[in-house]
Amino acid sequence: MKMIDFSRFAVVLVRPDSPENVGLAARGMANTGFSDLRIVGLDKLEAPAWRTAIHAESIIEGARFFPSLEEAVSDLHIVLGSTARVRHEFPLVTLADGVRRLDEYPAESRIGLVFGNERTGLTQEEIGLANIRFHIPQAARQPSYNLGVAVTLTLHAIAFEGAPAPAARKDFPLTHAEQAEAGRRFREMLDSFGFMHDTNRTFITEKVQDIFFRMTLTAKDRDIILAMFRKALEGPRKTRPRARRGKENP
Amino acid sequence: MKMIDFSRFAVVLVRPDSPENVGLAARGMANTGFSDLRIVGLDKLEAPAWRTAIHAESIIEGARFFPSLEEAVSDLHIVLGSTARVRHEFPLVTLADGVRRLDEYPAESRIGLVFGNERTGLTQEEIGLANIRFHIPQAARQPSYNLGVAVTLTLHAIAFEGAPAPAARKDFPLTHAEQAEAGRRFREMLDSFGFMHDTNRTFITEKVQDIFFRMTLTAKDRDIILAMFRKALEGPRKTRPRARRGKENP
Repeated sequence: MKMIDFSRFAVVLVRPDSPENVGLAARGMANTGFSDLRIVGLDKLEAPAWRTAIHAESIIEGARFFPSLEEAVSDLHIVLGSTARVRHEFPLVTLADGVRRLDEYPAESRIGLVFGNERTGLTQEEIGLANIRFHIPQAARQPSYNLGVAVTLTLHAIAFEGAPAPAARKDFPLTHAEQAEAGRRFREMLDSFGFMHDTNRTFITEKVQDIFFRMTLTAKDRDIILAMFRKALEGPRKTRPRARRGKENP
Repeated sequence: MKMIDFSRFAVVLVRPDSPENVGLAARGMANTGFSDLRIVGLDKLEAPAWRTAIHAESIIEGARFFPSLEEAVSDLHIVLGSTARVRHEFPLVTLADGVRRLDEYPAESRIGLVFGNERTGLTQEEIGLANIRFHIPQAARQPSYNLGVAVTLTLHAIAFEGAPAPAARKDFPLTHAEQAEAGRRFREMLDSFGFMHDTNRTFITEKVQDIFFRMTLTAKDRDIILAMFRKALEGPRKTRPRARRGKENP
């Protein structure tokens, strides 16, 4: 996992229309570890913001309000502006490239991530304040991403690009020799009921070996598989009477 | 951009509680180019789904309903199950690794992306049906991602991992020789008002050159910069009277 100082980042929402979207953006911040929320053009948030800010109430409550984007980003070093419209007047990079661009700057740089109004986006003047202008790739011109979704996609890319596997399994796989041995025992069983013969032996052997290695079995996996086949080879037996068996329809 | 046959993918939502979230997931599908929506455990969608399914009404209207996950994925080849809880009983990969895993299979494989209920997720039995179990990295155990956001993050990773820059600029940069020439003209102007002297000449020359190359100027950029400095060197002049100047407060 990249070591990130999340306090270096501020999310700046410019004139958001929908308090639900602000709440969803705040939840995305909590999902990804960010907390500095700045809002331009409003002086407070309406109640519906709390409904969608699940486990992110403190972010909503700590939000700061600014009359202009310029004031909202004045203490930051690098401003990234998001635009859904693809414009050709200025260099525009993908979200992923914008995130990589941040690595060029000192690790202590303070960074603003700026998102415009749901329908109208950032004005030409506001996008002009950004050092890096980025676009979240989308399939067609419409629809653009929901504002809260766009914020979460962006923060997720910053926080978790190249994140390692979330949890290693507890059980070791078998050692390679044990995996090979399990395959060999399995093939012996196949042999014992005449499944393998001269014309298919090589093919079946290779196939079974391939399957066994691909499964990266643990000892428990192997024991279950071999036990199943051993039982199958013993042939049909009387079913053990089931206890607590209720009445069943015929 | 990766060439993706979007019709190979189905999004499967298992027992979603909130119609708004289903609509948000559908909007995420429209954002990213997917359209096959399957819903388990409901037999219709409530009206609020349409409110959030902006430009995605046809996806909502084309949704199919299944009584069980098994039936919903029966025609698919590879099932990816999303889990917010990190469990150690089975191999669990990140979203990014799960997406990469898909490249191991034939390009025509039909793929299901399965997401559980907002609060309870997938049952142990349902996650057991998945060939690949993935986790969207998050900062802490709580909150998990909103369902519509989780769907969009997943589809975005499938559709746009490694997407190219969204739009090339229209203007060519100057050729390298022209960029160097612009720097030289700029340094001559600095020289003309005594900014450079023997002790700083090398330093300033290098610095200006560095800045000029980093800006990757177009002809228009160069003309503006050089014109500005030329005017500055001409010194203060009488301000041109502004036409249509209104009355101003003192």
